[in-house]
Amino acid sequence: MEHSYVAHGTKDKHLQRLKRIEGQVRGLHRMVDEEQYCIDILTQVSAVTRALQSLSLALLDEHMEHCVVQAVGDEQQAKLKEASAAIARLVKS
Amino acid sequence: MEHSYVAHGTKDKHLQRLKRIEGQVRGLHRMVDEEQYCIDILTQVSAVTRALQSLSLALLDEHMEHCVVQAVGDEQQAKLKEASAAIARLVKS
Amino acid sequence: MEHSYVAHGTKDKHLQRLKRIEGQVRGLHRMVDEEQYCIDILTQVSAVTRALQSLSLALLDEHMEHCVVQAVGDEQQAKLKEASAAIARLVKS
Amino acid sequence: MEHSYVAHGTKDKHLQRLKRIEGQVRGLHRMVDEEQYCIDILTQVSAVTRALQSLSLALLDEHMEHCVVQAVGDEQQAKLKEASAAIARLVKS
Repeated sequence: MEHSYVAHGTKDKHLQRLKRIEGQVRGLHRMVDEEQYCIDILTQVSAVTRALQSLSLALLDEHMEHCVVQAVGDEQQAKLKEASAAIARLVKS
Repeated sequence: MEHSYVAHGTKDKHLQRLKRIEGQVRGLHRMVDEEQYCIDILTQVSAVTRALQSLSLALLDEHMEHCVVQAVGDEQQAKLKEASAAIARLVKS
Repeated sequence: MEHSYVAHGTKDKHLQRLKRIEGQVRGLHRMVDEEQYCIDILTQVSAVTRALQSLSLALLDEHMEHCVVQAVGDEQQAKLKEASAAIARLVKS
Repeated sequence: MEHSYVAHGTKDKHLQRLKRIEGQVRGLHRMVDEEQYCIDILTQVSAVTRALQSLSLALLDEHMEHCVVQAVGDEQQAKLKEASAAIARLVKS
């Protein structure tokens, strides 16, 4: 019952986002290596955190729509519980 | 007045952390590419977010100790304002 | 299609939680009024924030289980979109 | 060395903010009691959380300016450590 990203065409978008985030992390490495100003580094860390957060929310939306809602009976209960734990981790992280 | 990470020996530690985070982001790319289960990907995104958060808090501590506290007069006021804005961004991201 | 809290017996639990949170906020008022130490006040504000966060997660779980999952067709799409926006607000607040 | 809010005239402002937050929590109690729509309640919980967050940031700013920066020697180290722990709790809550 696990959904394929390919099917609904968002896989490429997610992969591009992750490539961009990887580039941002490499940028942070360079900033620390060049001993740039702390506050500028912190601003950039916040930008990466927000990018990861957006990705999480997009993945969660898809998961809700394609996995949770389409499951039935006990499986749906299990999926709901799992999604709920994932949301709690997101809210607390 | 900007501090050198080298001086107090934490630069290497920060660079290692960022290398590890870059590896985690590459791992996420692979997970999405292999269409692994959403919830597992979300768990991993939360781990990366927490790693970035820890890095931010470590950078902020150093900044407070080496830049804000050691500044004087108007410069200290400016540094405090800047640190306060960085904290607000962290809390809200 | 809106669910009754009464039906599944959690309404009283939520009301008790909110009474406790109201008491905590009154406690904060007293702490500030008595000019208690900042850090102690901040610790208490974090406790209230966490209590509100837990309440949100509990309400969201119920909503997912009783409203989103049981809706059908277009209504379900609308409910999913609404839940997704609520999750984003939680994650960002 | 603990600062008086009265001295720099922000105590009343903080007390008013807390009164307003207490009113918002009472409003939440009423919303749950009247079984209003979940999503509306969640929106309101996010508003209260944000109000508490703003209050924290304001208290922290004052604390940094009036306690941390003005402390000296070992006391300043202790205050920095304490502020750093408070910031970490804020970021994680």
